[in-house]
Amino acid sequence: MSVTINYNNMMQHVLGDKGIADSEIQSMEQFALKAFDTVEAGRGNDMQGWMDSPYDQDEVVKAIVKKAEEIRNYDAFVVLGIGGSALGPIAVFQALKHLYYNELPREKRNGPRFYVLDNVDPERMNALFDIIDVEKTIFNVITKSGATSETMSQYLIINDLLKKRLGDKANKHIIATTSSSKGSLIGLAKEQGYDTFFIPEGVGGRFSELCPVGLLPAAVVGIDIAKMLEGAKHMDQVCRNKNLYSNPALMSALLQYISMKKGKNITVMMPYADSLKYIADWYCQLWAESLGKAVDNDGNIVHAGQTPVKSLGVTDQHSQVQLYAEGPFDKVITFIEVQNFRSKCEIPGGLEQLPNVSFLSGNTLNDLMSKELYATRYALTKQKRSNYTIVLDKVDEFNLGALLYLFQMQTAYCGAMLNINTYDQPGVEEGKNATYALFGRKGYEEKARELREATPDSDKYII
Amino acid sequence: MSVTINYNNMMQHVLGDKGIADSEIQSMEQFALKAFDTVEAGRGNDMQGWMDSPYDQDEVVKAIVKKAEEIRNYDAFVVLGIGGSALGPIAVFQALKHLYYNELPREKRNGPRFYVLDNVDPERMNALFDIIDVEKTIFNVITKSGATSETMSQYLIINDLLKKRLGDKANKHIIATTSSSKGSLIGLAKEQGYDTFFIPEGVGGRFSELCPVGLLPAAVVGIDIAKMLEGAKHMDQVCRNKNLYSNPALMSALLQYISMKKGKNITVMMPYADSLKYIADWYCQLWAESLGKAVDNDGNIVHAGQTPVKSLGVTDQHSQVQLYAEGPFDKVITFIEVQNFRSKCEIPGGLEQLPNVSFLSGNTLNDLMSKELYATRYALTKQKRSNYTIVLDKVDEFNLGALLYLFQMQTAYCGAMLNINTYDQPGVEEGKNATYALFGRKGYEEKARELREATPDSDKYII
Repeated sequence: MSVTINYNNMMQHVLGDKGIADSEIQSMEQFALKAFDTVEAGRGNDMQGWMDSPYDQDEVVKAIVKKAEEIRNYDAFVVLGIGGSALGPIAVFQALKHLYYNELPREKRNGPRFYVLDNVDPERMNALFDIIDVEKTIFNVITKSGATSETMSQYLIINDLLKKRLGDKANKHIIATTSSSKGSLIGLAKEQGYDTFFIPEGVGGRFSELCPVGLLPAAVVGIDIAKMLEGAKHMDQVCRNKNLYSNPALMSALLQYISMKKGKNITVMMPYADSLKYIADWYCQLWAESLGKAVDNDGNIVHAGQTPVKSLGVTDQHSQVQLYAEGPFDKVITFIEVQNFRSKCEIPGGLEQLPNVSFLSGNTLNDLMSKELYATRYALTKQKRSNYTIVLDKVDEFNLGALLYLFQMQTAYCGAMLNINTYDQPGVEEGKNATYALFGRKGYEEKARELREATPDSDKYII
Repeated sequence: MSVTINYNNMMQHVLGDKGIADSEIQSMEQFALKAFDTVEAGRGNDMQGWMDSPYDQDEVVKAIVKKAEEIRNYDAFVVLGIGGSALGPIAVFQALKHLYYNELPREKRNGPRFYVLDNVDPERMNALFDIIDVEKTIFNVITKSGATSETMSQYLIINDLLKKRLGDKANKHIIATTSSSKGSLIGLAKEQGYDTFFIPEGVGGRFSELCPVGLLPAAVVGIDIAKMLEGAKHMDQVCRNKNLYSNPALMSALLQYISMKKGKNITVMMPYADSLKYIADWYCQLWAESLGKAVDNDGNIVHAGQTPVKSLGVTDQHSQVQLYAEGPFDKVITFIEVQNFRSKCEIPGGLEQLPNVSFLSGNTLNDLMSKELYATRYALTKQKRSNYTIVLDKVDEFNLGALLYLFQMQTAYCGAMLNINTYDQPGVEEGKNATYALFGRKGYEEKARELREATPDSDKYII
């Protein structure tokens, strides 16, 4: 296998009383297998449509690859999306393309420059217009409901600009990725004649990277999306294994569940590779939004959830590791190790007179990354800090697909263990409704009144 | 004042029993003032040299501005640094320069492209060489000790390349920012004839943004560093106020301290502005490394610390806010609000047939940012989630200097309250020593033996 997990450093034989005992795992084996059954029973149903993603997209992939070929002639490709519609495309782009892709000359890029507008900051929007020519740009509007305020605001701005500049041909510059049947965007897309890709009903935002939401942007920059799906399929096969001890997603979900119950309310995701930096961002949404729930499936108030923290090795050894080593015993650290980088960089000599530097000469940066990961993990383990490592032999399409799917399965299992709804996000409705009310949207008069009547801030608590 | 804090939503009159009572603040007033006295007593001494930064740099600023003018003719400027030497320069650059600065044409940039190499990933290093010409680039090596393995590895690679390409003129492309008296780099800099700027002895990495570490990179991209220091000076004056109720750093430190004692072991930093995104990263180092300590000043084992989480509004409303609203009551959220963005973006009409979108038309993205912040804060407060807001009237040099200094003061006060050493980082030594041992560095034979004798990973816990 190309993606493995090593959880020695979660266990009692390494961490002593800060670790998990074999007997704890054994005593929870049936509990874990029940979660496995729950997830398998839901496969493909309701919001578990993402489990079909590795299997049912042959035709979609063909259509995407064909469209992507056309788009590759443009100067820029801009994703309009937020949340899962942005984090997945960013993570995969960063993982598999040149780390300064947009700054490469066209002939080295061999594809359009790539941007994701995932905020409604006016300065960001105006800055983007300084560096792209909308007439040479394709915009991919991604929103399942067609009612995401941020994305639709961006759409309105860009559509207006395109129409002013291109008139009737504006529609050739917009691609809609949305629900095929529900919501506002599909009707609009038909009316305007946009190219369209569909988000399956059973796929929610944070589980959508392996459907057209993520596949189109990836294909546009030249990523082999069929290989990504192969990797996901491979991981799905591994995770169909109803055996706690050979199912990496199920075991890692159980380890996190046990850790949560022991008060470890923080989970750190720490890849040791610049290319995987934004995988941590993507994971943070997946884990936070899926598991952070007030009420369980039986209606009990539980306030479940574990707060994900993104970190990057070796960089954050100089920023966060002091806290991880000496602070409270409140976290689990997941390292992601890459065994083979795609290039090598040698460290030359030249400072033989300085023994605190010269020991590095003759080695490679590759060695330095790998030894620092080993050393940091050793030091944290010595301090009895729970950690496990996901090992990739290399970063490629296959392994990335497998890794994303592994995290999705882990999240699904952990949600089942917590007996919560892994797929909804009721906690953001209140904020959305308040926003609508503040804009005076019709139907939100009651909320507007509530806001007006809220206790105003007291100057006493303003400095 | 241009930077204020509003902490209504930390208090009992808003949050009920999840809030802090006036009486709790009153009962801890003397405790807070003792922390104030501790910090003032240390002003300028030992590792509190950073408190002199706003006052004693007139000459340094002149020298930096002069050197920066020369550098501005080059094509690229690359910072070699990690931790504080990287996070500060990145944060200030992002806050005050165009959001796609490096992609602007030269005439719009009016300065060199700007890069920070803060990792030793070989893919990153090689990618950088694909887009810069070292002969047209200035490299700023930042390390106080001259012994930071990551930075000195980068130095060796770049120095070797420069020497091969430029021979004796290589030294004109390297600027050293380091200790004036201690460590390896100063001797090397003199020997090689590098331009040099000094890091005062009493300024540690995470408190160094307002000394030459941060000031040179900022000046190179055209930021008014004197104004930044004016802002810092202003905030220092505000914080010299020995009055808990009018000292924003002291009050916010106390609020965090009380929250920690009540089990809130997570602090979220959530600016609502793309320009301030990396201020959160910088803050995360400051807070994590300063306060995450195993032992207090009296030798008691305390495992203090609060884990900082970086977040970005409105983006992370679609990623993290579900957890913040419904998950455990384990966090304090700090919003950063910007009242006036530096540009405006109107949302046009065009979808009058869609009421769930058309209510946005006629407003601006500026409105949307500000109303979403208001609404999210309202929703979280309604869920009894502790939060406070730092309000900037705008993002400019003065306010940014004030903001950074506010955070530094807050951290200093909170460290004093926790009775820990705010300025060391003993927890990273073990990992450094293990790295040296793995490289076979002389003097680390004992550690190498320890590593060899460590229990090997059992295959039983690898899937």
